[in-house]
Amino acid sequence: MPRYRLDISYDGTAYAGWQIQPNHITIQEQLESALTSIAGQQIKLHGSGRTDQGVHARQQVAHFDLERWIAPGVLAKALNACLPADIRVWSARKVPEDFHARRSAVSKEYRYFIWNAEVLPPYLRFYRAHVRVPLDFHRMQRAAALLVGKRDFAAFSANPNRDVGSTVRTLHRLCLRKQGREITIIAASDGFLYRMVRSIVGFLIRVGEGALAPEEATSILASRRRTARVPTAAPQGLFLWRVRY
Amino acid sequence: MPRYRLDISYDGTAYAGWQIQPNHITIQEQLESALTSIAGQQIKLHGSGRTDQGVHARQQVAHFDLERWIAPGVLAKALNACLPADIRVWSARKVPEDFHARRSAVSKEYRYFIWNAEVLPPYLRFYRAHVRVPLDFHRMQRAAALLVGKRDFAAFSANPNRDVGSTVRTLHRLCLRKQGREITIIAASDGFLYRMVRSIVGFLIRVGEGALAPEEATSILASRRRTARVPTAAPQGLFLWRVRY
Repeated sequence: MPRYRLDISYDGTAYAGWQIQPNHITIQEQLESALTSIAGQQIKLHGSGRTDQGVHARQQVAHFDLERWIAPGVLAKALNACLPADIRVWSARKVPEDFHARRSAVSKEYRYFIWNAEVLPPYLRFYRAHVRVPLDFHRMQRAAALLVGKRDFAAFSANPNRDVGSTVRTLHRLCLRKQGREITIIAASDGFLYRMVRSIVGFLIRVGEGALAPEEATSILASRRRTARVPTAAPQGLFLWRVRY
Repeated sequence: MPRYRLDISYDGTAYAGWQIQPNHITIQEQLESALTSIAGQQIKLHGSGRTDQGVHARQQVAHFDLERWIAPGVLAKALNACLPADIRVWSARKVPEDFHARRSAVSKEYRYFIWNAEVLPPYLRFYRAHVRVPLDFHRMQRAAALLVGKRDFAAFSANPNRDVGSTVRTLHRLCLRKQGREITIIAASDGFLYRMVRSIVGFLIRVGEGALAPEEATSILASRRRTARVPTAAPQGLFLWRVRY
């Protein structure tokens, strides 16, 4: 049974997230049903991880098995012809049978985009979090630096019980960029807990607003408990940016 | 009668363009009806120029007169509260009574965004023209340089009869930028003929594809007649970027 890897981009605006769930349209479902009709067999697609409602992906990776061989290039073109315009396949390729989109991933990168001004340009409204209060960029950077490294991120998970096993993750990178009215937060880790990026961003926004001190990052981490100091930032600012294998 | 200037941004995706027309929803109509309900009087709004169906604006400028004084800041907030999310008002301000959004404009800048790759990221699909054939950027630049200056642009107007008077315009700037898979074309002029930017871009894309020589810019200008050598590029790549007074 040949195993295939897909590299996928999507606009999450119209979907209830990646993962199949009853009574909602999801990205995984759209891809599985396109694959099933192309391959003429029931396909189960395994993503590198789920993304929430309204969250986008520049690079999501998934794998699946076929009963018979189909040339990867043919598969990619057939998928793009079948899929709605808000989901696109960059490439399909044959991978070894032990490749697993989630388990083989060594790191993931997310990017979160904040538009920090009174008015949000309307053509960015589905792709940026809108924060009107002027954010103190340097305070946010100081707080971010305290979160980098191998740490227990339980306090930055929306529902720690949903995360199986350890809540320790290695945050390789948490860097901020500012360009005009836009602030970009880049987060790379060996893995992320449930809503961890949006929780970190929610905290950084509170710090940037002046509501929390940057140093509270340390005490929040140590508490290992989710509190109101860590709100969840809006989904539409978040992009799954890259998955490394 | 106080005169006001509005600086407006819009996502043109859902509209039949700027200008009011029967049986279609337009941006001018949305703004006039919001203004009319806020001011309690019938308002006629004058834009710096029309934009076509699917074309966006980073900065569109318009003016209107009120019978009674309303503080500009109040007006801007009330408008944003009334308007749909795809139209936003950056600012409202009082201007002298001889200010005219179209006639007082000294130059306009448009930007056109091309995504040049096999696959278009789905979250950009309403904001980029998608060109799959690899474009030769330097050929496009050579052609663009031949169009800059004071020239008769009749051959780059979709319907020269619609343009009243002279078809001579001064194209101050026509420069191209390339960043990864994105090509941006920046066009600034004292004024643009009907569909002039999309016609110039349509021509530049043909040059980039290798279908036309850059030097044909000169003979097309000289012909003063629109031919099949000048196709009209897709609307969704175009943004009215700036109007100068």
